[in-house]
Amino acid sequence: MFDLYVVTDRDLSKGRSDAEVARMAYEGGADVVQLRMKNADGREMLEQACLIRECADEMCKLFIVNDRVDIAIASGADGVHLGQSDIPLDTARRLMGDDAIIGISVDNVDQAIAAEEGGADYVGVGAVFRTGTKPDAMQGVGLGAVYEVRQAVDIPVVAIGGINRGNIQDVIRAGADAAAVVSAVVAQDDVRGAAHELRDLILKVRPHIPPEYL
Amino acid sequence: MFDLYVVTDRDLSKGRSDAEVARMAYEGGADVVQLRMKNADGREMLEQACLIRECADEMCKLFIVNDRVDIAIASGADGVHLGQSDIPLDTARRLMGDDAIIGISVDNVDQAIAAEEGGADYVGVGAVFRTGTKPDAMQGVGLGAVYEVRQAVDIPVVAIGGINRGNIQDVIRAGADAAAVVSAVVAQDDVRGAAHELRDLILKVRPHIPPEYL
Repeated sequence: MFDLYVVTDRDLSKGRSDAEVARMAYEGGADVVQLRMKNADGREMLEQACLIRECADEMCKLFIVNDRVDIAIASGADGVHLGQSDIPLDTARRLMGDDAIIGISVDNVDQAIAAEEGGADYVGVGAVFRTGTKPDAMQGVGLGAVYEVRQAVDIPVVAIGGINRGNIQDVIRAGADAAAVVSAVVAQDDVRGAAHELRDLILKVRPHIPPEYL
Repeated sequence: MFDLYVVTDRDLSKGRSDAEVARMAYEGGADVVQLRMKNADGREMLEQACLIRECADEMCKLFIVNDRVDIAIASGADGVHLGQSDIPLDTARRLMGDDAIIGISVDNVDQAIAAEEGGADYVGVGAVFRTGTKPDAMQGVGLGAVYEVRQAVDIPVVAIGGINRGNIQDVIRAGADAAAVVSAVVAQDDVRGAAHELRDLILKVRPHIPPEYL
């Protein structure tokens, strides 16, 4: 399983490329990087994807491509992340095969159940909090939605949207298996340090068996 | 071979869907329709693609998807059309297989030769004339470029960009094997009639052997 999931956003990355940010995020402790390049040209996105694939291989990390199944396949990504208005899950599965990791964005329990029944490998629930990254998601779905989705499905639940050092432990306590962040990592001067801190915060609140009982 | 190649553009289609326009264009005599939906969501584009695929099958026409190799594969399109900043030709070929038709946009002879050597099935040369559809292509490459590309490669040459009833015969005379149009068909009240007229104009200037010599 993964703990910290970082989604790229070039507009927030202070002139650094998606691949540069991805490398620093992995080094800091991100388990997964999702390459999200809305409205980018295919060639440029594929180039970034191939760079991140190489880096993820070196570091034994996971690499996911947002939306573009063709670029996911061409770059050898571990999987694809799909929103509700992207290519449908069953189509992506047919193109990518059974081994691919396919994640689906959901904002409620019904969508989460549909995703699980459709064969999704994880769901991304959000936006949990209000976020500047997705201005159309004005009102966050809240921690309650994370809790409800966690109860409703067996596949991993990744919380996303407005998550930062101040609230990341709350989303884990609400039941998220992992937290996905955008600006809290990619927009920081110290990407590596930000990823490291966020991952530490997650691990500190994970349910665990106290060592004295082992 | 194909004569009239129609490229969709929802913004110019007067409220009609890409699939509706495609059907009328095929009925009017278009040999190929290319679904171009820049910035559309994957799901919506795939829906339109599947509708056009069905229609093309009924009418024994060709169907090409712009840019999105995943949607081309998922919809069973005959091929994909790629610009210079889309996924590279060799990558698309690897994903789509040898039978797929892959067309490449070029604006000069060097690009055309590279496309042919890379295994492209046709090149789209343009924009030939100034066009409102692609405002960044301010200055057309002109009929001279069509002629030069036709001399330089053996694969079919499709001229595109600012082509209408007034100049379509010129581009054929300049050596284009086919003419691709956008607004001259999709923006017309009578899509069917416009396609029919343009195809007639092409056929009238095709080199042909006069019947008395047959």
